[in-house]
Order: sequence, then structure tokens, then C-alpha cells
Amino acid sequence: MLKAQYKTRGPIPQDVIEAITCDKPELKEGQVMLEMLAAPINPSDVLTLTGQYGILPPLPAVGGNEGVAKVVEHGSNTTEPAIGQTVLIPIGVGSWATHIVADAKSLIALPNGVDPIQLSMITINPPTASLLLSEFVDLQAGDWVIQNAANSGVGSYLIKLAQLRGIKTVNIVRRESLIQPMLDAGADVVLVDGVIEGQSLAQRVKTATDSAEIKLGIDAVGGMATHRLGETLAEGVTLVNYGAMSGEPCSIAPTLIIFKDITVRGFWLAKWFKTATPEQQKQLFSTIIGLIASGKLSTPIHATYPIKDIKQAVAEAASGQRNGKVVLVKE
Amino acid sequence: MLKAQYKTRGPIPQDVIEAITCDKPELKEGQVMLEMLAAPINPSDVLTLTGQYGILPPLPAVGGNEGVAKVVEHGSNTTEPAIGQTVLIPIGVGSWATHIVADAKSLIALPNGVDPIQLSMITINPPTASLLLSEFVDLQAGDWVIQNAANSGVGSYLIKLAQLRGIKTVNIVRRESLIQPMLDAGADVVLVDGVIEGQSLAQRVKTATDSAEIKLGIDAVGGMATHRLGETLAEGVTLVNYGAMSGEPCSIAPTLIIFKDITVRGFWLAKWFKTATPEQQKQLFSTIIGLIASGKLSTPIHATYPIKDIKQAVAEAASGQRNGKVVLVKE
Repeated sequence: MLKAQYKTRGPIPQDVIEAITCDKPELKEGQVMLEMLAAPINPSDVLTLTGQYGILPPLPAVGGNEGVAKVVEHGSNTTEPAIGQTVLIPIGVGSWATHIVADAKSLIALPNGVDPIQLSMITINPPTASLLLSEFVDLQAGDWVIQNAANSGVGSYLIKLAQLRGIKTVNIVRRESLIQPMLDAGADVVLVDGVIEGQSLAQRVKTATDSAEIKLGIDAVGGMATHRLGETLAEGVTLVNYGAMSGEPCSIAPTLIIFKDITVRGFWLAKWFKTATPEQQKQLFSTIIGLIASGKLSTPIHATYPIKDIKQAVAEAASGQRNGKVVLVKE
Repeated sequence: MLKAQYKTRGPIPQDVIEAITCDKPELKEGQVMLEMLAAPINPSDVLTLTGQYGILPPLPAVGGNEGVAKVVEHGSNTTEPAIGQTVLIPIGVGSWATHIVADAKSLIALPNGVDPIQLSMITINPPTASLLLSEFVDLQAGDWVIQNAANSGVGSYLIKLAQLRGIKTVNIVRRESLIQPMLDAGADVVLVDGVIEGQSLAQRVKTATDSAEIKLGIDAVGGMATHRLGETLAEGVTLVNYGAMSGEPCSIAPTLIIFKDITVRGFWLAKWFKTATPEQQKQLFSTIIGLIASGKLSTPIHATYPIKDIKQAVAEAASGQRNGKVVLVKE
């Protein structure tokens, strides 16, 4: 049995995490032994290793916040979920491990036979993408939204969720090579950020959308990328930030805030989980699970690694040059 | 008769404005001749000269947007307001002139015998200060707000309007010499921006307010001053920007937007005038006029100039080292 543990935090995330062996624990009544099938490395996991995230667990800690597993052993007097059942592990338990002990009652059964890699990411990125599209503006079919970091996990889910609702997306990326794959994946417009051939991002968005009113801006970059996104928006629109990939503060000119009446807000999934009713959470997850099980919702996978290669996996996840998610899988 | 006119816009505002003589116009029926008593030079006037403001009038234009005058002559069949009556001129007519022709019906009579310099500023800064305190958060007596550029016109009105409502103010300035005069004028706390003796602004605000929750942030500076203000705020609070004295975009870290749930919004008085009902506008102005007439509301005056010295007056108004408003007055 292996788990990916860190005892300190530091600027180079792969330096602080390491795979260590651990003894098989005794199961108590009501507990089950889970064999992990897949667990993603999310940007928030990397920021937790570097100490830059909003909530930091006490040290030492096991990395990872979400994943799927199958039940391999029951504690005494425990029969459910059945051996072999695919389950969602509780959020935040440290999912980067080959095995996890969990309370049987804390597990949510998932459909067996669905790709565990796609299922392993359902608690963070798809809800974030879905809520970004629902919590700030009442969007209708035909409305336009714009997002940067559009090739991120959240970005790729957002394109598909928008498409399913008939909402059109402008997607901002940093590399031209991403344009065609994203158009193939359902993006309506894909543009490289910044000034291209003397044309600002706002000018190019206007041309590409036939001067459509952009009803929502979604920023995961910060720095002047926030301002450039703001310049593309219609008057009175909300610009939501949910990430800081540039490592810089969000910058936006007062002219956009004052004269164009742009509101800048933030979205944090952990806070939504704290305030949403169990019914709202259940509805969101059953929708997402259904879409993933039916193949309508998926995200590109950049690479998979076993837990023993955690350092390489984290280094790859922390790099800016990915074409999808890095996921830890059963060896 | 003189008016301060500009035919072009440019980076040095005193270079584009000049006092020119003009002939006395014929009055039509329903019109009155006004002799200007006082007209302020507001930051928005300076930004209009440099071309950086949200709305720019067609050229050539007469500078100034507000002021008070007295009626000196009636057109045919016109008897009201009476000769000698102090009146508020309509907003945006170009108030930097010795005389103005106006439709009698467009004038609002003001109490005679009140300092015309203080009365001349009622259409822009006091409503801005009042609305900043009322339009974003439901503040109660005892609540704390924080503002930067606290020695500005809006800032000084805001301190007094807050004090009248029992709201406490933290006031951020750039010079230590401003602290005592502002405390004397009713500020609860006055602090110099930035890190002082190893203590961040947020740490010093916490000490000075006995760890009070700051319920509203008011920013007229932009740049990292926006972020420093955000760091002082309680969770879930709104930070309103209404100016750009630094000339830089507002910068605020995603950690404040996402984890602290700070919302960044803008305030533009011209937009409020467009959307508020006549009843709301009338109520706001009658309150402000009453407070000024009774001496409860006033702002410091840095210097006064006649129209013929418009270049010097604008240069002084555009300088960052003022201790109050620059006002154009009758010679």
C-alpha cells in the first residue's frame, strides 16, 4: 500500500510530495477498504502543496481531494456497498493513495462500468463549471459567455455544459495549437489572448461573435488577462474570477468598473458546498454523473501515473504546457 | 464676459484650456442672464480635458459641470427667478464662465445668503459621497467603512455624512500632515497607506479599530491601493471604486476575490442620475442643500481663482498636493 504524503509546503510542489509505503490498517465495524481506481491532480491540489490555497490541512497530509475507488473489503457487520462496487470517496480525505479506509455510510455509489478516470473528477471541476454558468447570471439559450484558461479542466467542462444548454462560448487560450482541438470539442469561438496583428482581444471577439453582447466573463488567470476579458463584456456584466494561473493580482481599469459597470466577483466551490442545501448538491451531482455516464460530458486526459510516480505526476500537473488533466490511476 | 474654452484634448490639461472673451448674447423669451458666483474644478473636469473621462463633449467646449450663479437679467416676458436670486445651474452646461444664458425653467433656486463656494459643489461630490454610503451596503450606526483618497472632495464629504449617520470611518491618505486636520474634521481613524514600521495597512487598521469588521471599502485610487483596501475588509464585503487617481488599473489578488468573497463594483454618478426617479433625486438634493445651508456639511477649499486665471487654476487642481478644492469665483 502506498500513499502520497507531504510533511512541509514549498514553492516546488514535486519536492515536498513523496510516495511512502504504509501497513494495511485493521478495519473497524462500519468501515470498508477501498482500492483507488483514479484520482486527479487539480490546480487547487498543487496550490495546497505550495501553501497558496485558501484552506490548508494540518501537516503531515496526504495529497488529493477527490477520486473514485472500488470496495475490496468489509469491516465486521458491514455488507454495503457490495464488494466490487464503484464509489465516490468523500471530498478532502487525501485521495492520492492506492488504498483508503472509509466509513461505509460516507460513500456514494457510482454506476459500475463507466470510465473511472472521467468519474474521478466529478466533485470539483464539473460542479465548478456548472455553477459558474448558473450562480451569477440567468443565462438563456443563445447567450454568449467568455472564459480564459479555456483548455483547463473547468474550461473544457464549461464548453460542454454550455453547449448542452445552447449557450455559446468564446474561449481564450495562450497557444494557437489549442484552437482546432477545442473547436472540435464544441467551442463556438477560440482565440489566442492579447493583441494579434494589431487587433485587441475585444476587437477580435467582436468580429468573431458578430458584435454579440457577452453576458458573463469567467477568469482563471488574473493579471491584465482579467482586464482584457473585461473589455470584451457588455455593459453591466459580471466578471467572475475562480483562479490565479498567472500568479498575479486581477487587474481591471476603473473605466471598465465605473463607466461600463462591470462587477468583479469570485467563485469558490468549497464555500458553495457549505451554503447549498443537500437537495441542491444532490441535484447537481446526479445531473453531472448522468452526463458523464452517458458520455456527454468528459475532459481531455494529458497523462496518467501510478502513485509511485507521484513526483513526476505533480511536476507534470504543475506545468503550464498540458493538454488535459493529469490523473493518478491504479497500477 | 469670459469663458474657459478648449478646442482640443491633451495630456497637460492647463495647455488645452484658455479664457476667451465673448460678446453679450441677446436673451430670448424664457431665458435669463446669470452671473456665475462659483464653479469648482473637479477631478472629472480634469479628466475631460485630458480625454480620459467616460463621456466627452463635442469640441470646442466650455469646461466645468456645476456651479451657482445669480440672476442678473430677464428675457422678455420672464420674471422668475427674481433678479438677485441664487440659483443652481443645470449640470453639464459648461460652468467655467463669468456669465451663462439659461432657460429660466431649468434653474433650481438656492437659499440666498449661504456661502456660494460651498453651494457650488452640491451636484457632484456630496451626492457621490452620500450614494457611496447608501447604494451598496445597508449600513447601520456603529458600522465601519474605509476609504482611500480620503482628503479628496468626495472623501471629506463622506467623513461628515458618515458622522451624521453614526457610521465610523477609516481614512487612508498619502501624507502624514493630513492626519490631524482630518481627525479635527470628524474622521474616526486616519492612516497613511502602505507598510509603516513593518506593519501592513490591514494590520494597522485592525489595531486602530480594535479588530472591527469593515463593512464597505471605497476606492478612488486604483493600482495596488485597491488590493490594500481589500485586505482590510471583512468577508463577503463590497469594494466600490469611483476614481483612478493613480492612473493604474485596480489590482486585487484572486485570494481576496475568491476566498474572502470580496465583490468589486463601480459607482458613476451620471448613471445614477439617469436611473434614479425625480423623487429620489429631489430628496437627495434637498437633504444636501439643507446640510450645507446649516453649516453641517462643507469641504476644505485649497484656492480660488477668477476665470481669467483658468490655466493656473486647472494646473493647481490637477496637482496631487492640494489640501482641498480649487474653485473658480466671481472676480
